[in-house]
Amino acid sequence: MELHVAFLPQEIEAPERRAVVVIDVLRATTSLVTMLERGCDEVLIAPGLDAARRYREAHPDVLLAGERGGRQPEGFDFGNSPVALSQAALAGRRVVLATTNGTRAVHAVRRSPVVFVGCLRNRRAAARAVAQEAVGRGWDVTLVCAGREARFSLEDAYTAGAIAEVLLGGGGGPARFRPTDAALAARTLYTTCPDAESLFRTTRAGQNVIEIGLGEDLGYCAARDRSDLVPRVGDRVTLLDDA
Amino acid sequence: MELHVAFLPQEIEAPERRAVVVIDVLRATTSLVTMLERGCDEVLIAPGLDAARRYREAHPDVLLAGERGGRQPEGFDFGNSPVALSQAALAGRRVVLATTNGTRAVHAVRRSPVVFVGCLRNRRAAARAVAQEAVGRGWDVTLVCAGREARFSLEDAYTAGAIAEVLLGGGGGPARFRPTDAALAARTLYTTCPDAESLFRTTRAGQNVIEIGLGEDLGYCAARDRSDLVPRVGDRVTLLDDA
Repeated sequence: MELHVAFLPQEIEAPERRAVVVIDVLRATTSLVTMLERGCDEVLIAPGLDAARRYREAHPDVLLAGERGGRQPEGFDFGNSPVALSQAALAGRRVVLATTNGTRAVHAVRRSPVVFVGCLRNRRAAARAVAQEAVGRGWDVTLVCAGREARFSLEDAYTAGAIAEVLLGGGGGPARFRPTDAALAARTLYTTCPDAESLFRTTRAGQNVIEIGLGEDLGYCAARDRSDLVPRVGDRVTLLDDA
Repeated sequence: MELHVAFLPQEIEAPERRAVVVIDVLRATTSLVTMLERGCDEVLIAPGLDAARRYREAHPDVLLAGERGGRQPEGFDFGNSPVALSQAALAGRRVVLATTNGTRAVHAVRRSPVVFVGCLRNRRAAARAVAQEAVGRGWDVTLVCAGREARFSLEDAYTAGAIAEVLLGGGGGPARFRPTDAALAARTLYTTCPDAESLFRTTRAGQNVIEIGLGEDLGYCAARDRSDLVPRVGDRVTLLDDA
């Protein structure tokens, strides 16, 4: 089976026959893992801010989380800061999440029946989860980077490389997958830089997070293998259509 | 000014206001540099094999070079092997070149008025040429990787990184450019692997070249800074339309 990395969501081929991990490590997929760890019942991924607000008009019980330009949108309960969300009272709540790049990426891969949500904090668990699904079905795996405004993002490629390292047998994992050039490149980006937080600070997304005063999110997002929770679309994670 | 790397030709934004280097190091852009070094009058880049053959029907004096699946097409005078082309009698001739990925890439960036052809053999000269054009106009630079069958190719990303290293001031060059995440990633791929030929052997394109018995092309394409010749579209390099 093949292990591929799509550096942009639009690069994914034949999603209906691939097991997928979606990655927007700064910060949407890290936030999503954190919200489910905090015990929220369900995360509804909205295609935009307006769709999130409309959903709340019809369902006043939900909370709204998300960002535009990195910042908490007006009328929202939370921004997209995983550090802030890690301290929020979310148990038993439903949360609508509307971010820029991560949301688009999850919607872009919706034709895949197996979509996991990955970041550095759950990277080993995410690798195991997608390997199990792919091997059982004889499917290829694609790690899908959200990118940033339709451009390559280094932090997502790095995180894909961290997951690829597990799938390709680094660190004692199984080596059932044949890497594409993109998977080899992502793994190199990961293995040559042990300090994720420093790397994140050099990226456009990381610089934006620092500029808006949320630099402590970078260390949180850069922590590796802290969670065994691997969100899966269709199981406490639901895509909202833009109705 | 910004230095960006488009890992696939379709990623290029606003080509009409960017200075561009197109890269298909295995093997089209290496072959193109080699043909002009051999003194051929003009290289005509055809959008496909049929267009190349039709052009020769109307212009029987031209030579045909190119590949499909890496191999020399029927009726062509040359394949796409730069080693073979480096020994060919091309002085004063016009050559139509029809390859798979490199040709598509050059056609994809045709809206840019400044398109150079780059590879490892001319990488420092290519960096200088594009820097001079961009700085003079105040334009951004994009290094455009041809990719392989619409997918990321490691050897092109590596070569973009080698050119980026010069543009970003490594090796004593000028540092006028602000790198995007993609440019940072490409540079990392380059700086962490000093042995280009070994890296090329691990790539899908490199494996294909070995399989068809042309492995010696890899060492030729991996040699760095051997030529000061930087082909430019519009100057002895012409795009043929598919008429």
